[in-house]
Amino acid sequence: MKQLLLIGIGPGDPRQVTFEAVDALKRATVFFVLDKGARSDELVRMRRAILERYLPTGDYRVLQVDDPQRDAFASDYIDAVQDWHQQRAALYARLIDDELGPDDVGALLLWGEPSLYDSTLRILQLVRQRGTQLQLEVIPGISSIQALAARHQIPLNRIGEPLTVLPGRQLGAVKQIDNVLVMLDGQCAFADIDDPQLHIYWGAYLGTVDELLLAGPLLQMKTQILAVREQARLRKGWIMDTYLLRREL
Amino acid sequence: MKQLLLIGIGPGDPRQVTFEAVDALKRATVFFVLDKGARSDELVRMRRAILERYLPTGDYRVLQVDDPQRDAFASDYIDAVQDWHQQRAALYARLIDDELGPDDVGALLLWGEPSLYDSTLRILQLVRQRGTQLQLEVIPGISSIQALAARHQIPLNRIGEPLTVLPGRQLGAVKQIDNVLVMLDGQCAFADIDDPQLHIYWGAYLGTVDELLLAGPLLQMKTQILAVREQARLRKGWIMDTYLLRREL
Repeated sequence: MKQLLLIGIGPGDPRQVTFEAVDALKRATVFFVLDKGARSDELVRMRRAILERYLPTGDYRVLQVDDPQRDAFASDYIDAVQDWHQQRAALYARLIDDELGPDDVGALLLWGEPSLYDSTLRILQLVRQRGTQLQLEVIPGISSIQALAARHQIPLNRIGEPLTVLPGRQLGAVKQIDNVLVMLDGQCAFADIDDPQLHIYWGAYLGTVDELLLAGPLLQMKTQILAVREQARLRKGWIMDTYLLRREL
Repeated sequence: MKQLLLIGIGPGDPRQVTFEAVDALKRATVFFVLDKGARSDELVRMRRAILERYLPTGDYRVLQVDDPQRDAFASDYIDAVQDWHQQRAALYARLIDDELGPDDVGALLLWGEPSLYDSTLRILQLVRQRGTQLQLEVIPGISSIQALAARHQIPLNRIGEPLTVLPGRQLGAVKQIDNVLVMLDGQCAFADIDDPQLHIYWGAYLGTVDELLLAGPLLQMKTQILAVREQARLRKGWIMDTYLLRREL
């Protein structure tokens, strides 16, 4: 049995880490740092800053590995993601088999919350199917959704109201948007919506020094959000943002 | 301007509190502890345990006040909730006006996540409308949803899939349940669903020593969950539970 901790480390602010997560950091002997793309360097640096802050003794190994990239131009989205997950599972299985000894405790530091739009749990399921025995532990973390709500000081739902959380590519399929939280929207799907009753609460780089917040009626805010977002993306080379669309009653 | 901190303190485990929340606890001089109903004593005790753990000097005031109860038999749910919120706003306004001096920092300790099915932000909006000027700060906390996912080691969404979060009373209105997280379901709405493709991942008292977890095909698990839930509720006098219903693919 290989021991592995999946540790949610929050959206970016090292103070938005729980005591449970820090206890888990202290138990780990090997940290796997897997990342990809333009934001990679900065996110690796931010993870290392969290380790240095909470583990000052430095008594651990960090294994930094390039994560395989997904084929962004594949015609079938689900197929492409499943292929990509299989590639990642092969890599993770090799790392776990080769690098974790019987007394080691491995750890993956996951941005935000491990159960929300993060594929690590699914990939480790594939790792198990490949024959590696895993003893997992999952430690929740503050998600960017929660940071967004806290910074805008809004509830995520009104009285008795559902909240729908979805990725940007699914927003177009929603028949009536009343209270929808959108994550992973590289294509700015909000810009295609022309409903005068909707408000938007937008945030980027939540919990970091680069945090950006904008809110107001969607039709009034669209152009400004697109401009601010594009400027930030060009300046930093990557962007992570999320937003709530809410029908005003 | 009255300073007030809304501090999310997680689902119950004092280790599932963030460093940001503890920094906020340390800034507060007055804690308002408002609660209601059968679970009141235990929840008050759990809040006090968090204060004692993280603020050993004891240099703060705790004001414990009975929260007004909602009329559970009112015919119109939204009206009843709005009335109840107005009563609570009157109480909160009086407490804030009377008890917070110019150098005080007030704090409310909120279970789970302050933005999710918690009415405090809405009530403070009513307090502002009554004329009290507030300088608010919101500190996110781990919600019971996240604790549920972590303990069952499941992602809250599968690839590209939406997640809907709703209160139990709305479950009956959902046309097709694919991936729905239910909170505040005192009536056990899951028991009325007869869809053989659904799985349930259920948890109660998450993050506490009384934690209960059950999962499996809904039709197989229904009776067991109802029995375990009712036994626990009778034994403790209250229950807080949440569950995910997921269509197996």
